[in-house]
Amino acid sequence: MWAQVVAIAPNIPALYELHFGVPMAGAILSALNYTLDHTTLANIFLQLNPKFIFVDYQFLDLVLKALHSLTQNHNHINNHQPPPTLVLIPPNIQSSSSSSSSFNLPQGSLDYNQLLELAPPPHLHKFEIVRRPNDERDPISVNYTSGSTGNPKGVVYSHRAVYLNSMANIINMGMARSTITSTTRHATVFLWTVDMFRCNGWCFPWAIAAIGGTNVCLRNNDISADVIFDAITQHKVTHLCGKPTLLSILAKASENNKPLSSRVELVVAGTLPCEHVMKKVSELGFNISNGYGMIEALGPIIIEPWIPNDNVKAKHDQRLRSSVITMEGFDVKDSETMESVPKDGKTIGEIMLRGNTLMSGYVKNPNHNNKETHSGFKEGWYRTGDVGVRHPDGYVEMKDRAVDVVISREGHVVSTLEVEAVLLCHPLVSAVAVVGRRLCKETNDANEQCSSNISSLCAFVKLKIENTNTSNAISSQDIIEFCKERNLPSYMVPNVVIFGDLPLNPTGKVQKFVLRNKVNNSNNGIIF
Amino acid sequence: MWAQVVAIAPNIPALYELHFGVPMAGAILSALNYTLDHTTLANIFLQLNPKFIFVDYQFLDLVLKALHSLTQNHNHINNHQPPPTLVLIPPNIQSSSSSSSSFNLPQGSLDYNQLLELAPPPHLHKFEIVRRPNDERDPISVNYTSGSTGNPKGVVYSHRAVYLNSMANIINMGMARSTITSTTRHATVFLWTVDMFRCNGWCFPWAIAAIGGTNVCLRNNDISADVIFDAITQHKVTHLCGKPTLLSILAKASENNKPLSSRVELVVAGTLPCEHVMKKVSELGFNISNGYGMIEALGPIIIEPWIPNDNVKAKHDQRLRSSVITMEGFDVKDSETMESVPKDGKTIGEIMLRGNTLMSGYVKNPNHNNKETHSGFKEGWYRTGDVGVRHPDGYVEMKDRAVDVVISREGHVVSTLEVEAVLLCHPLVSAVAVVGRRLCKETNDANEQCSSNISSLCAFVKLKIENTNTSNAISSQDIIEFCKERNLPSYMVPNVVIFGDLPLNPTGKVQKFVLRNKVNNSNNGIIF
Repeated sequence: MWAQVVAIAPNIPALYELHFGVPMAGAILSALNYTLDHTTLANIFLQLNPKFIFVDYQFLDLVLKALHSLTQNHNHINNHQPPPTLVLIPPNIQSSSSSSSSFNLPQGSLDYNQLLELAPPPHLHKFEIVRRPNDERDPISVNYTSGSTGNPKGVVYSHRAVYLNSMANIINMGMARSTITSTTRHATVFLWTVDMFRCNGWCFPWAIAAIGGTNVCLRNNDISADVIFDAITQHKVTHLCGKPTLLSILAKASENNKPLSSRVELVVAGTLPCEHVMKKVSELGFNISNGYGMIEALGPIIIEPWIPNDNVKAKHDQRLRSSVITMEGFDVKDSETMESVPKDGKTIGEIMLRGNTLMSGYVKNPNHNNKETHSGFKEGWYRTGDVGVRHPDGYVEMKDRAVDVVISREGHVVSTLEVEAVLLCHPLVSAVAVVGRRLCKETNDANEQCSSNISSLCAFVKLKIENTNTSNAISSQDIIEFCKERNLPSYMVPNVVIFGDLPLNPTGKVQKFVLRNKVNNSNNGIIF
Repeated sequence: MWAQVVAIAPNIPALYELHFGVPMAGAILSALNYTLDHTTLANIFLQLNPKFIFVDYQFLDLVLKALHSLTQNHNHINNHQPPPTLVLIPPNIQSSSSSSSSFNLPQGSLDYNQLLELAPPPHLHKFEIVRRPNDERDPISVNYTSGSTGNPKGVVYSHRAVYLNSMANIINMGMARSTITSTTRHATVFLWTVDMFRCNGWCFPWAIAAIGGTNVCLRNNDISADVIFDAITQHKVTHLCGKPTLLSILAKASENNKPLSSRVELVVAGTLPCEHVMKKVSELGFNISNGYGMIEALGPIIIEPWIPNDNVKAKHDQRLRSSVITMEGFDVKDSETMESVPKDGKTIGEIMLRGNTLMSGYVKNPNHNNKETHSGFKEGWYRTGDVGVRHPDGYVEMKDRAVDVVISREGHVVSTLEVEAVLLCHPLVSAVAVVGRRLCKETNDANEQCSSNISSLCAFVKLKIENTNTSNAISSQDIIEFCKERNLPSYMVPNVVIFGDLPLNPTGKVQKFVLRNKVNNSNNGIIF
């Protein structure tokens, strides 16, 4: 139907260009995560059957391994299909001296520069060489989930959805188009700290082009505070985005760097770090906002400014503005009855979305018969898998992932995110994950399959001081006392604290299901 | 099919509310120009057959006259239809003391307050009381053209088009959503100086709501510099729009008013006044932009900042950015072959648009059998009726209305707008209109029907000094000399200058067709 084109590259200009060249050639772009292992990559190649694979020289070995594993294991499947053509993006595509001849490429491979030279010269270009979609709902790209609970799923975006989401991003992030600069407004200069392979870089390749903004590309697999501060100063950056770890990176640099001369908008999507980290980054000159979204909704759908707040209670609120520009509906519903939960700030429901900036569906997966697309939607509403409440003032408060939420012995619904937010404020704590250990018939038989959701709270804690004997530096009881001092209600205070490393998926998220399995399905010597 | 609702009111909160209430009730809103005469209004009522007419108390007499004329002249047409229900918007809708009882209303009329009270109380409101369109291309509103060359035409807007245009306006005007205010950004406060009956106030009722901005309403039939400055100071206005006359109003006030404490964005659509007027307004604290658009394209599609320029040549350029966010195509074409004109800055063509923010078509007019909709589009392109050129750098330069452009004796294409821009810089000139007088077979027989477009240039000039004997204050030769001094090429210098008042249409535009008829079809004593 449509040709698939895969790209594996950091945030380099060539990957930005592919966000235009590939759709304008009538094909579908899949920018893939370069931290995936070659087996997972091979499975994605098998699913997409790409016609071209564009690969940055840094990830050539990874791609060659994946292609090798594909021909070894799946030769019988693709024997009617021509193999994909590899296009190498050499170290410096501007320089003719750096060619792909020094790389060991399969026969028939191309060099990115050579490919560009195949195009007719500019004066022969006509508007008509662009192959426009027949229908605005035709696919433009496929973005893969991290696959923390199974095979990565390919999420299909349409031309319509990415257009609308690009427009919404410009508005949500307050980006000025290049022509309305004045004494008080600066043209948008976007620093690429968010991965372009993540929801197509939150649709920013298209958004920045629409307003005639400037892109500052970074090899984002090598980001440091120095790189960021240098880019901001040199290029007058106005906006950057990414994971909340950006905040920690910047906060650490606060001693070496003077505050910026004009304020920069910084949007992170995920759980915010502790208040004092936020304050440090704010004092450096950043206006911080927090994004809420998911791959299936094309990235953050809500961008809410962070405002310094000394009220400890308010700090735990993860309230979401319900003014979502591109969504027809944004609600918290009982997932059985599909009724909205009452606006009481207490009744838990599932956050659901309906509207124009949602995925078209998942790529058909031979192993799953596309049942994910069906289970992901109910009566036209996309089920986020997040639970939340509605407040009397109309605000929605996101509580937790549905699979992560814990029901306490007393029957309280505990947001593990809220407990983690408090633990992260402990000066010695680097990372945390709170999960529930099911309490089955009040027995100790943890091996028995248990249908009750009532659980005790287990906090897995990674300390900042590496290689330290934890029992000397800090005890479980210290952590528990810290939570009590911070006025956490007793049912939200962890029952047990376990020190050590946390299992991460390729996008850097903690794999809570690993920890949940650990505490629920094995006699692994943890004392409760 | 859909119920029609008419509103006749200045920019008051009730008219803003109707932009939401009417579409959410599943009906179509027509906000009509309150300066129309009652006969024209009656014709529009006849065409729309409205179920409700909302009328501000100031324009009750006008509407009653129109309804009277309708029943007198067209009783035979509407005798199967129930008459429209009149809803009076009293002077102060907040105050219960001001009721409609003091007005002489037809039986069955309602008061706006009474109507609002018919709604169920807020706690019984459900999402479902909103009647959503079945299709996003369903109509939301009808806006009428000024009808300077015939009957006013009803231009139909769709939900889809106004949504997209509202999003584009937010971006084009650099409006910040209310939640991203910071030390460097102010939440949008919009002062209503553009008529809400004009392209639905350029779609700003919906745009301002989408970003949670503040509306400052004005009885816009009574605008003065004092009112504008007071509103800006009191409400911290960030944006206002309207006709270029706003600039003259503000410039006149420059002696009495101190510059604003923070800069305000001001967009006007139409021919800009002379450079020194612009500079005065800019110095008062306004960032001025110029809009290009038309009712059929939902208002300005291009908003270009004005930048002070001392280069006389460049000042005459009316170049338009071709980066039009919501349009699929923006081009200058030969209207016969539909080929784009070359990018040579010389070849004249018609400016044409294709895209998502165009009207759905004209309301079916019994007198015209809807032929306007067919002739308005060609091969999917909307024909603006404006002529322009394409420059080598990709810019489009708008030259003139197609009907107004003049071919000089030497064969040059003369933009009357460019000649007018120079004449407006003369310190004694208040308003101008330049038209062509056809030169037929080099004879003086102006009464003979002439098919040649070759014309001499006639400048109609209104002076600032009223009731002055023009021949004493300034002569035709003075005006002609002024043009030569400003380096206008000889073929652009008017051949004749006529002093006096200019005929205006109800929206304040000069009716050039009246002047053209005057110089081409009568022996009216004008000496050539």
